Amino acid sequence: MSKEIPYKIYLEEDEMPKAWYNMRADMKNKPAPLLNPGTGAPMKAEELEGVFCSELVKQELDNDTAYFEIPEEIRKFYKMYRPSPLVRAYCLEKKLGTPAKIYYKFEGNNTSGSHKLNSAIAQAYYAKQQGLKGVTTETGAGQWGTALSMACSYFDLDCKVYMVKVSYEQKPFRREVMRTYGASVTPSPSMDTEVGKKILAEHPGTTGSLGCAISEAVEVAVGTPGYRYVLGSVLNQVLLHQSVIGLETKAALDKYDITPDIIIGCAGGGSNLGGLISPFMGEKLRGEKDYRIIAVEPASCPSFTRGTYAYDFCDTGMVCPLSKMYTLGSGFIPAPNHAGGLRYHGMSSTLSQLYADGYMEARSVKQTEVFEAAEMFARVEGILPAPESSHAIKAAIDEALKCKENNEEKTIVFGLTGTGYFDLVAYEKFHDGVMEDYIPSDEEIAASIAKLPKL
Amino acid sequence: MSKEIPYKIYLEEDEMPKAWYNMRADMKNKPAPLLNPGTGAPMKAEELEGVFCSELVKQELDNDTAYFEIPEEIRKFYKMYRPSPLVRAYCLEKKLGTPAKIYYKFEGNNTSGSHKLNSAIAQAYYAKQQGLKGVTTETGAGQWGTALSMACSYFDLDCKVYMVKVSYEQKPFRREVMRTYGASVTPSPSMDTEVGKKILAEHPGTTGSLGCAISEAVEVAVGTPGYRYVLGSVLNQVLLHQSVIGLETKAALDKYDITPDIIIGCAGGGSNLGGLISPFMGEKLRGEKDYRIIAVEPASCPSFTRGTYAYDFCDTGMVCPLSKMYTLGSGFIPAPNHAGGLRYHGMSSTLSQLYADGYMEARSVKQTEVFEAAEMFARVEGILPAPESSHAIKAAIDEALKCKENNEEKTIVFGLTGTGYFDLVAYEKFHDGVMEDYIPSDEEIAASIAKLPKL
Repeated sequence: MSKEIPYKIYLEEDEMPKAWYNMRADMKNKPAPLLNPGTGAPMKAEELEGVFCSELVKQELDNDTAYFEIPEEIRKFYKMYRPSPLVRAYCLEKKLGTPAKIYYKFEGNNTSGSHKLNSAIAQAYYAKQQGLKGVTTETGAGQWGTALSMACSYFDLDCKVYMVKVSYEQKPFRREVMRTYGASVTPSPSMDTEVGKKILAEHPGTTGSLGCAISEAVEVAVGTPGYRYVLGSVLNQVLLHQSVIGLETKAALDKYDITPDIIIGCAGGGSNLGGLISPFMGEKLRGEKDYRIIAVEPASCPSFTRGTYAYDFCDTGMVCPLSKMYTLGSGFIPAPNHAGGLRYHGMSSTLSQLYADGYMEARSVKQTEVFEAAEMFARVEGILPAPESSHAIKAAIDEALKCKENNEEKTIVFGLTGTGYFDLVAYEKFHDGVMEDYIPSDEEIAASIAKLPKL
Repeated sequence: MSKEIPYKIYLEEDEMPKAWYNMRADMKNKPAPLLNPGTGAPMKAEELEGVFCSELVKQELDNDTAYFEIPEEIRKFYKMYRPSPLVRAYCLEKKLGTPAKIYYKFEGNNTSGSHKLNSAIAQAYYAKQQGLKGVTTETGAGQWGTALSMACSYFDLDCKVYMVKVSYEQKPFRREVMRTYGASVTPSPSMDTEVGKKILAEHPGTTGSLGCAISEAVEVAVGTPGYRYVLGSVLNQVLLHQSVIGLETKAALDKYDITPDIIIGCAGGGSNLGGLISPFMGEKLRGEKDYRIIAVEPASCPSFTRGTYAYDFCDTGMVCPLSKMYTLGSGFIPAPNHAGGLRYHGMSSTLSQLYADGYMEARSVKQTEVFEAAEMFARVEGILPAPESSHAIKAAIDEALKCKENNEEKTIVFGLTGTGYFDLVAYEKFHDGVMEDYIPSDEEIAASIAKLPKL
């Protein structure tokens, strides 16, 4: 007889991963290299090191090393909020009346409220190791900024966050969390930077954009001795750090001899999805096992399902390197849906290559159906999910209902990336029946894609 | 050699408590009975059953039974968010440079954001068992209302929450969490009740008070067939349910052969403190062990440290039974400090008796020093604490610094009741240097106490 599965599977501290896993090492078709937008040549380490920490550049460019040891200091920090629980969704299963077995890896039990802390602490660590004074970054809704503030506070690094002005003004709570951790938070565009001054001169009333905030953060990092720029998603290094999610998930499943059939994650830039699926994808790439892997994106920003696979700018300001990825075009402006973390025009180049090679599926879901799933989940499982995470919930429920129809006892694992405590304006709109679904027209997407850089 | 202590001690599911512990059974001097405010006679079960669920009335009045089995359904729900971790505060110890060993029991990892859920689920369960349709309650800042909404959603009970109007308007986020769980939330005073109508007629512009919201919730419960009123603190039944905190804490410490010297909890109505200390106080009452037990209250609402031990009304509306307790007088209006959960004029009658008998210490701390402690804690331990919980942090830090002075390796355990995600307005005031300390004058307290009911 198999062991009884507890509601929550926690690893012991000594069972926690000691190394991150790099999927690229097992990929036959490696992700395409970053290109210098000026020359069109692959970016060299030296070029990247002006912007990013040196050790992180190494991780970014290394397509061969399968395992990177997690430094002791980072493992110590991980122990403060990890292992995260792998939860058996007994109550959700009962509510759905499905024979499927549903598990979710819950990354929200920390003050940043999401999985972002897993990479923030790693990036802060390497900045500290390099003897830097501080780092800069941008943040929209503030999850990444919060995570980075916490990490910098721990390592006593200065943290300069450029926060999109409209969020700075409308979401003061995340700003205050960042201030609690000692970060300086500047509304963007600001008068701190040339790019900020230029934009303010041209558009005095602008409330900012993520693209502009990135440009400001990069300008300050490059122009200030002892500073580097850090980013919370999209990059290979971020997926590497986030592999801790998948490694813990797999270790917890292995403890109880559970093999998942379907693995589901929400996808914006790909940090959570890439981390969650890592060790499973590794087995799939090596031909050892097969899994269905499903990326879930918002219908309002459908880079996998309606984008094109091509080289594009990572930022709207078009100052960063070119990355080959599924993209809607760097000029695509996603509708103001409430899953801020998924409003990104492109996708991790690693995940893009895997998707192109048929290793993953993707689907898009509409905002209102995502909130219906979120509310049902909150009521039966207790946790108030972030809108981003709720995309994965929606897909997991759909798959579980298919199992019910077909009377199949499949095992579904999904990533519950975070909590929705700072997203209650969105929940309010949903309760009041005034939430809209945004779906870009074919013409809109085609027009944006037509402006991709010519190489 | 002793076992290495992990950062977080989690019990296994089969190590979780199967019964609540009732401190009153081991008290030589039992807490004084509730009195009927009309007759001055002890309240009988029949009188209380019009307001409260029958099984809860039994628990309320039972001073002899030491253990109450936790029903299977409640234990199942507990497994969704418990066991809560007992955390070794390695980083805080290092920051303080103290030889003391500091542990905290963290109750904030659930959507209600606090320990309140432990009793909410029990009270909802007994209401369901009794075949009731729903329950009513009041809420100020909304923690208790949120917890009750979650519990009622789980058992498919109707939940009517009367929320102090000023909070309803100024704190829409907690209101939205309650709506997510299907509760009806009514700003109080309302036109639903006679007492509400009366108050609105007399004071058309009033923004409400907890006393008024209690009166409305009680009126609706008593006047609606199939409804009862429930309360989140002060009562014996609540302390009984909250003993799960202390029982888990003790089991986790026992696993590693740790005996605490000092146990610290914040105290408003006493639900968290009473729960945390229960099994330790039991040993102390039975003469088996000794512990220093410290209640920490806000200087703005110091019922233990500056109140008097006497019979008083539990509510400001003076409709509820009289309870013998440390009180500042039911007419005492606490200054608008930011620890809403500690702004109560009285104290649990059980804790009051224990304090009167010398089994506990109490101290009061000022708001700004509480936030200083909160910020330091957030930075080193990662968790953003609730203002209420931060009272315990402040006292724990003070005790740890005394250990440093005296080079004593004491073991300190404190209760970290919840998170501060909905308290960022308070943090903002603190960061902006505009937070005030409120300390009532001796005259103010004397004047309030002079109005205690004459028996």
